[in-house]
Amino acid sequence: MARGVARHLTRLGFVSVEEFVPARGLRVDVMGLGPKGELWVIECKSSRADFQSDAKWQGYLEWCDRYFWAVDLAFPTELLPQETGLIIADPYDAEVIRMAPEDRLPAARRKVLIQKFATHAARRLQALRDPGVLGLVSP
Amino acid sequence: MARGVARHLTRLGFVSVEEFVPARGLRVDVMGLGPKGELWVIECKSSRADFQSDAKWQGYLEWCDRYFWAVDLAFPTELLPQETGLIIADPYDAEVIRMAPEDRLPAARRKVLIQKFATHAARRLQALRDPGVLGLVSP
Repeated sequence: MARGVARHLTRLGFVSVEEFVPARGLRVDVMGLGPKGELWVIECKSSRADFQSDAKWQGYLEWCDRYFWAVDLAFPTELLPQETGLIIADPYDAEVIRMAPEDRLPAARRKVLIQKFATHAARRLQALRDPGVLGLVSP
Repeated sequence: MARGVARHLTRLGFVSVEEFVPARGLRVDVMGLGPKGELWVIECKSSRADFQSDAKWQGYLEWCDRYFWAVDLAFPTELLPQETGLIIADPYDAEVIRMAPEDRLPAARRKVLIQKFATHAARRLQALRDPGVLGLVSP
């Protein structure tokens, strides 16, 4: 599902990474970065139970400009809070059904997050291109 | 050689990408990003002829905080301008022999470059993880 979300973000002119850590103890499923520096968090939920056991999501709101859920067609979307965005996704593609309201990040936090995003993406890229590098960095 | 440079940068706490385009018409071999947002350009030269045919390198100085050459042990390093950094590299590792002088980027340009770096790294990462995305973006 994260793959379909990433593909749709590409169509919107965004890039994205998975399993992004905006701050210690937090890990978002997908972080999207737009052409103007917009940061979107997308949390993927596979089922009602998966959503109901998530006690952390409100902690992500302050680390993005917009917050979305990504679920599949079978998900009971009435469970999801209205003031969040909604993406319907499958492994191949996705679509924004309800745009999330914007709550813009302070400039200093955006700057830190974009640098973290750059570091995250470059590390993962290097690990794929050069598995030999893995011995050089701590896990 | 770029791989050895990238490995050494990892040891220094930097991440890096290859073939980075800081501005239209420019393409640097390796762009390194440090933990404090430092941006280093490293141009790899395989031979005297390769260096002497490079008419563009001075145009890269304004897109980084520090500029380095990376060459192998056989390269005639006396050809290289003194006011640049020097890295000796092979495919497996590298070492900074002469630290480049620092000429700090203006904050606005650094911000743009770090966002471009993030976009570049995330695009390349996604293309490796999901080759199916390639049809969605222009080349």
